[in-house]
Amino acid sequence: MTQHFTDQLAAAVRRLASPIVVGLDPRWEQLPEVFRRGGDASLETQAWAYAMFSNGVVDVVARLVPAVKIQAAFFEELGPPGMAAMADVIGHAHERGLFVILDAKRNDVGSTAVAYARGYLGRSDSAWHADALTVSPYLGEDSLTPFVDVAVERGAGLYVLVKTSNPGSGMLQDVVADGKKLYRRVGKHVERLAVETIGECGYGTVGAVVGATFPEQLAELRAAMPHTWFLVPGYGSQGGTAADVAAAFDDHGRGAIVNNSRGIIFAYARSEYLERFGPARWQDAVEAATREMIDQLRAAVKGLGSGGSRPGHSND
Amino acid sequence: MTQHFTDQLAAAVRRLASPIVVGLDPRWEQLPEVFRRGGDASLETQAWAYAMFSNGVVDVVARLVPAVKIQAAFFEELGPPGMAAMADVIGHAHERGLFVILDAKRNDVGSTAVAYARGYLGRSDSAWHADALTVSPYLGEDSLTPFVDVAVERGAGLYVLVKTSNPGSGMLQDVVADGKKLYRRVGKHVERLAVETIGECGYGTVGAVVGATFPEQLAELRAAMPHTWFLVPGYGSQGGTAADVAAAFDDHGRGAIVNNSRGIIFAYARSEYLERFGPARWQDAVEAATREMIDQLRAAVKGLGSGGSRPGHSND
Repeated sequence: MTQHFTDQLAAAVRRLASPIVVGLDPRWEQLPEVFRRGGDASLETQAWAYAMFSNGVVDVVARLVPAVKIQAAFFEELGPPGMAAMADVIGHAHERGLFVILDAKRNDVGSTAVAYARGYLGRSDSAWHADALTVSPYLGEDSLTPFVDVAVERGAGLYVLVKTSNPGSGMLQDVVADGKKLYRRVGKHVERLAVETIGECGYGTVGAVVGATFPEQLAELRAAMPHTWFLVPGYGSQGGTAADVAAAFDDHGRGAIVNNSRGIIFAYARSEYLERFGPARWQDAVEAATREMIDQLRAAVKGLGSGGSRPGHSND
Repeated sequence: MTQHFTDQLAAAVRRLASPIVVGLDPRWEQLPEVFRRGGDASLETQAWAYAMFSNGVVDVVARLVPAVKIQAAFFEELGPPGMAAMADVIGHAHERGLFVILDAKRNDVGSTAVAYARGYLGRSDSAWHADALTVSPYLGEDSLTPFVDVAVERGAGLYVLVKTSNPGSGMLQDVVADGKKLYRRVGKHVERLAVETIGECGYGTVGAVVGATFPEQLAELRAAMPHTWFLVPGYGSQGGTAADVAAAFDDHGRGAIVNNSRGIIFAYARSEYLERFGPARWQDAVEAATREMIDQLRAAVKGLGSGGSRPGHSND
């Protein structure tokens, strides 16, 4: 029998008491200096630096969180060498036991959508080996079906953009028709897909992206989409707090995974960590920032537990 | 002074009297047999076949049309080797004098959108060297701005999805709010961006994707978006006719470029061409199908001209 991605993710979240996905968004200017030595860097050099840095983050967070979210854009920016680096990071994350959510916001229709889905979805069956993929809904229902079919067939996950965390997300998403905002309309469709792909954990293989920066809408969508697992961006540097994201969870501490990218991977540059660790011990800052977020979510999210069986939990 | 993509495209369309973009959508099962010899193919072998096939199409159509549209999904499906193949095809198309529109439907916000834009847009400045890129609007205004800024800076083009050609496009795009359909709302925003990026030809650097399969909406949007160049998919195998797409043009035969993918690149498999050329002369079928479409558009589109200065125009 085919595995169910969300069942597996839910089990890992429970085991670690850590509903966190660490976003791997390598930006050249923000990399620790050790990765930027040697002046002008070729695309190959930058791509290699992205892989080394991302794999270094993976090595730290693998014990602490269930998943990483790779932001495809930063690897794509570097051309073919960047794509090779991205493949390397996906493989390394899997070796360390992490789920890989590829944040690529793909969308198309018909056989083109099938090509994206087959190429990305599925740890063993696809060329990219991603466990889950973010998908944009603008093209409509027939653009989502091919992704859902492949995800179900391969035990992979999907996160459809519903209400995103950016300030301008309302331009289309908040448009009101027949008394209902567009994101509610998309949410209703995604909830239906979630019900159709439901697992033992009570949530579907098809999930939704719902930003932490609009807490009211987050709570509204949680109530309206009881079978849809949320991927929640916007925590930390974008302004979302632990109290804000608590509304994304059910009473058992399930139903959501909260992303943090810059706040964790570039934590070394925050003055508190720079003072404590210096720039060279950037991985210690990654660990401290991850543990800090775990503590914040455990305090704010009901039913999450304390992950007592996990070794070595301290802030030092 | 920076070049203006749409000015250049408009000049090429006029010179060739051929407002056509040939879609490079390589599908393994449909490739001419010569590319599929040897049984089970690795991703590397398939990627190499895609590049050889696509470059073979490029060699034929370079004299006949101004641009090719590469469907990223089919190359992405093959992982890193597919990405290397895509880069090879982009380079070959440029060598043959074609503009390259990358159909990747990318979208994101903030610095992530900047990374996509910088990575793809601009023949000389980017890693991928695309002349233009398709972009999805679901994330809203602040997701489009970074693409527009980079496109203007680098003289590259953009095509924002407005009304797509698939049967289910209405799920979101046709939602009516305040008496206005969503695609009209997106169209209005894109028209504003077109006006802000207008060139000497009277059209902006920012264009729109408007499908041939909804002729009424195509005519409606042409009237509502007088400064927006349209990229029109859905011709031929999806059902759009020359009469349908004629509404996308202004009275001088400008303002649109019509895509044809399968109808041209896999023309060898159509019974009329199979009979005439046999499977081995697939490139002759590509040429005949392209010339057929040129003739159809010249007959249907007012003001397009006959491209009399172009050598060797015949159907044999």
